[in-house]
Amino acid sequence: MKFSPLVDELIKSLQCLPGVGPRSAQRMTFQLLERDRAAGHKLGQALSEAMADVGHCQRCRTFTEQTLCPVCDNPKRARSGQICVVESPADVLAIETSGQYDGRYFVLMGHLSPLDGLGPDEIGLDRLEQLLQDEAPQELILATNPTVEGDATAQYIADMCRESSIRVSRIAHGVPVGGELEYVDGTTLALSLSGRREL
Amino acid sequence: MKFSPLVDELIKSLQCLPGVGPRSAQRMTFQLLERDRAAGHKLGQALSEAMADVGHCQRCRTFTEQTLCPVCDNPKRARSGQICVVESPADVLAIETSGQYDGRYFVLMGHLSPLDGLGPDEIGLDRLEQLLQDEAPQELILATNPTVEGDATAQYIADMCRESSIRVSRIAHGVPVGGELEYVDGTTLALSLSGRREL
Ligand SMILES: [Zn+2]
Ligand SMILES: [Zn+2]
Repeated sequence: MKFSPLVDELIKSLQCLPGVGPRSAQRMTFQLLERDRAAGHKLGQALSEAMADVGHCQRCRTFTEQTLCPVCDNPKRARSGQICVVESPADVLAIETSGQYDGRYFVLMGHLSPLDGLGPDEIGLDRLEQLLQDEAPQELILATNPTVEGDATAQYIADMCRESSIRVSRIAHGVPVGGELEYVDGTTLALSLSGRREL
Repeated sequence: MKFSPLVDELIKSLQCLPGVGPRSAQRMTFQLLERDRAAGHKLGQALSEAMADVGHCQRCRTFTEQTLCPVCDNPKRARSGQICVVESPADVLAIETSGQYDGRYFVLMGHLSPLDGLGPDEIGLDRLEQLLQDEAPQELILATNPTVEGDATAQYIADMCRESSIRVSRIAHGVPVGGELEYVDGTTLALSLSGRREL
């Protein structure tokens, strides 16, 4: 024990956050206890509620506390017959912000990474395959990150659709190679969507 | 709304932590939801308990969920007739780790900083004055940080004791000027304690 049990426990628990080590956990703990207990209370509440109630959209896998996320729950978004595959909910947000896309999404929640134990099932490709059968979309837009892993994941999904009649495309121009999709501005993303090419 | 309400709320709440902006709050939220809900639950619990139950030691003001902290609750620590004044609970820990001090503490929970609204009462100097009358210690060791604010605070407390018969000392040699007490190693702190001089 270094401080009192509850203080020690909080310092230890904060280190589950990415980028937070013992020193910054201690600083956070003292700051909350000394200057902002109301915020600390609120954060505790927000954590408990989110961990308990946030699940995945049954259709696209993004985070939501509903059965379906607002995009999947909106029948208008089915009209274009497009499904855009992205790595994370932040990428959905980035594409929505570009205002250039009115189809639906499928969120992998990661990318293929066999060394980390992330195979096709872990990123929901079994679910995607089922979805392609059920919805028979006209186009599958692969908007995974333009990184080695994102490209490999896109290629894997393209190969998976080879037998079907679905048009498979990959977003292309505009997104800087080696960058992360969610950091790209709306104009660049719009260019990237309109300049997509078939795989 | 950017994501779902509970996700948005968590991202917003995390930004009460020092050094956490919107980007890292989002990264923390996704990481907890996707990879470590058990840790997120535990952190929520630890926060709620600490914010509700951790108070201040009635004698020395350090953080504790008891009426008295373990040091103040230990009658042996009263024998030396010494009180060491520090800025934070982390400083108590640093001095305890040096193993060279067996007296009691008084924790200011900050330093004098009039521009931030931290005057003598805010750092507990009214309480310290009462303590000096009640306990009539032989020596008051001023171990505030060797910074402009820490030095000014030490000088203020020394002036406060000018009329009394208490010996007032300031830790001195060894602690690098401009540094922060809690980052100093035990040996340096021990030197610093033994080389203290009267003010
Ligand atoms: Zn959805
Ligand atoms: Zn105490």
